[in-house]
Amino acid sequence: MNSRNLQWLEAEYTRRSFLRRVGGAGSGLALFGAGGTVWAAEPTSTTGPGALQETPFPVGKDVDSLIRHSGLTFETKRDAFGTSTIVPYERLFVRNNLPTPDRALVDDRNAWTLSVEGVARPGILTLVQLKALEVVTVATVLQCSGNGRAFFEHEASGSQWGVGAAGCVIWSGVPVRAVAEAFGGVSRGARFVTGTGGEELPEGISPDDVVVERSIPLEKGLEDAFLAWEMNGEPLPLVHGGPLRLIVPGYFGINQVKFLRTLAFTPEESSAAIMQTGYRVRPIGESGDPNQPSMWEMSVKSWINHPSGDGPMRSGRVMVDGVAFGGMRGVRRVELSVDGGTTWQDAPLIGPNLGPYAWRQFAVPVTLERGTHLLMSRAVDDAGNVQPADRLENHRAYANTSWRDHAVTVEVE
Amino acid sequence: MNSRNLQWLEAEYTRRSFLRRVGGAGSGLALFGAGGTVWAAEPTSTTGPGALQETPFPVGKDVDSLIRHSGLTFETKRDAFGTSTIVPYERLFVRNNLPTPDRALVDDRNAWTLSVEGVARPGILTLVQLKALEVVTVATVLQCSGNGRAFFEHEASGSQWGVGAAGCVIWSGVPVRAVAEAFGGVSRGARFVTGTGGEELPEGISPDDVVVERSIPLEKGLEDAFLAWEMNGEPLPLVHGGPLRLIVPGYFGINQVKFLRTLAFTPEESSAAIMQTGYRVRPIGESGDPNQPSMWEMSVKSWINHPSGDGPMRSGRVMVDGVAFGGMRGVRRVELSVDGGTTWQDAPLIGPNLGPYAWRQFAVPVTLERGTHLLMSRAVDDAGNVQPADRLENHRAYANTSWRDHAVTVEVE
Repeated sequence: MNSRNLQWLEAEYTRRSFLRRVGGAGSGLALFGAGGTVWAAEPTSTTGPGALQETPFPVGKDVDSLIRHSGLTFETKRDAFGTSTIVPYERLFVRNNLPTPDRALVDDRNAWTLSVEGVARPGILTLVQLKALEVVTVATVLQCSGNGRAFFEHEASGSQWGVGAAGCVIWSGVPVRAVAEAFGGVSRGARFVTGTGGEELPEGISPDDVVVERSIPLEKGLEDAFLAWEMNGEPLPLVHGGPLRLIVPGYFGINQVKFLRTLAFTPEESSAAIMQTGYRVRPIGESGDPNQPSMWEMSVKSWINHPSGDGPMRSGRVMVDGVAFGGMRGVRRVELSVDGGTTWQDAPLIGPNLGPYAWRQFAVPVTLERGTHLLMSRAVDDAGNVQPADRLENHRAYANTSWRDHAVTVEVE
Repeated sequence: MNSRNLQWLEAEYTRRSFLRRVGGAGSGLALFGAGGTVWAAEPTSTTGPGALQETPFPVGKDVDSLIRHSGLTFETKRDAFGTSTIVPYERLFVRNNLPTPDRALVDDRNAWTLSVEGVARPGILTLVQLKALEVVTVATVLQCSGNGRAFFEHEASGSQWGVGAAGCVIWSGVPVRAVAEAFGGVSRGARFVTGTGGEELPEGISPDDVVVERSIPLEKGLEDAFLAWEMNGEPLPLVHGGPLRLIVPGYFGINQVKFLRTLAFTPEESSAAIMQTGYRVRPIGESGDPNQPSMWEMSVKSWINHPSGDGPMRSGRVMVDGVAFGGMRGVRRVELSVDGGTTWQDAPLIGPNLGPYAWRQFAVPVTLERGTHLLMSRAVDDAGNVQPADRLENHRAYANTSWRDHAVTVEVE
């Protein structure tokens, strides 16, 4: 399935999804509410002004905070990130590989079933049973593999994300380890944890070509991966994978399988295209291959959110803030340059430390005179790894951590 | 102004506010959206089904998660609390002393002005100027003084809150200390920090009788109070005090003055009724008096959220979770009893520690057989203070921390 097919699928889905939600048995309403948020209401009558107005934004998302790349991909604007560490639902980016399932999926969350395979006694648990096993609450950075793709110079397919295909959120769920134990432990020979999404697959295409199924090393899965049913204090929203999602702290978003239907402990990696050949880091022009590195672990990265560089500013004192994370570990420190990388100053971290997989935020006041300024941040993780100046060139433009690429140009009048 | 007057005011406001929002120049819409959320849309046309349907819920609040006590007071249901530490906007309780100002107040947040008095050089700062001074990010428990009032036996006036006039949120703002420094420091003789809200006051009533103005000790104000413009990663919502609110970590909600218009360093406590005679702890039947303790510091408290006791359960294993906080300090440990307080077991804390002013959550699996069970939690703060078995009886039914009162009765079939 090439990207043109997928685009068609996205457009088709968006249209169908909308009609199903607001049309169907009756017509309904989709309205722009106060503050620019799109509220797509449930069908309430057979007529209404909103029935004529199509909205591609997921329910409750804040239109003013997001950039729409497609019907399945929404990016948080640089200046829509706050400084309270977490990103609320309304402002969190969206990236779905397949059309989001129908809302009926979350009508009865507790009845959701998970099939567990590759254990001593394979079986099924409902969400209400999973909730009684064990509970962990963990803050993680959720980041798309292609975040920062827009800064590459070659034309890589995929959403042209700037900085905003990322967010820090707090999840609650049950450890993968506890689920394995509930079924008598992992089968001998298993080397991976494989999660399968519950999206309906389009007909006429081989399931392996489209299914959202990813594998992670068994050791990582048993160490701290978990199955989440809650995000930021509310039941996991549908568009973010509710009722149940696999969370692999420190790993790229593609591994955090949504609508999780099957959790399997497997001797091999999934045969799905997005595991075998997709999400593989390789030189520009080469095809994906299972021998290439998979998009698993994230590494140290930071960027400035304010000033965002949108429009000219007045001279004087301004607060520079942004985010920094280590990927698989915490952040030791962040430096700021307001002269294009010639000199650097310490950028103090603010706010609570939500753990090694969360991001930290930094804030430092600077005085900017009239002229053009190039601002950038550079983070160092807890192991001493320094965020690099340059990106690693690669075919699909994945994993951009370059501090140069993430710089902000500010015009001061 | 007695409570009957206030109730009348609330009802009147709700009606007027609604008409202003959806009627006015044209008519508009107020609809129940997906998931039970009420979305009050901006006026879009002169006709529409929602124009006939009045909603008293603030924009974007989740109807299914809240109990409506009045047009100004909404309580989070016990089972609407999650386990992700923070409470999102949609589920956070609301308690306003006066009608919420018009939405126009947040049309241009950065232009909001704060008057600073009782400093070497009194003056005014805009919000954009405050943002450039200094930034702190702090998680705190926001709790109404009357939370738990419903468990008292005498008839105390005020909202009959159960457990849900409380929430844990993350704020960003500027320290009171930094604001004082920006104006040359605090005037000699100041002993209090006094914040004044920007609500429009009703005519024909002495301002002191209704103004939301509270004082806290100067030492506390300079230690860690701050002025917040952001909550949980988004600009502070109007109903929670946006554009700017005074946050006093560890203090009851009444001190966290909304729509902050004036920050003053004063030799005396405010002359407002809610400072002089309101929010004073005294024996039942006595009048409020400035010599009685004011509702400042919170103390150690915990309660169970799940099971919530709403409806019968099936026997077997269930996860018991809840919240615990120390008020002015962190929580050392929590104990759980499933037999009415006869025996206790350790209830492990889960999730990230967001600092001493945030709450922690606990979760412990238990097996419940058929019958009636009385479940309760008991917290110990970092100084060794133990949550008491019994409440302190007092006229206005403030500050209930009794673990007995907060117990949950569970029927298992």
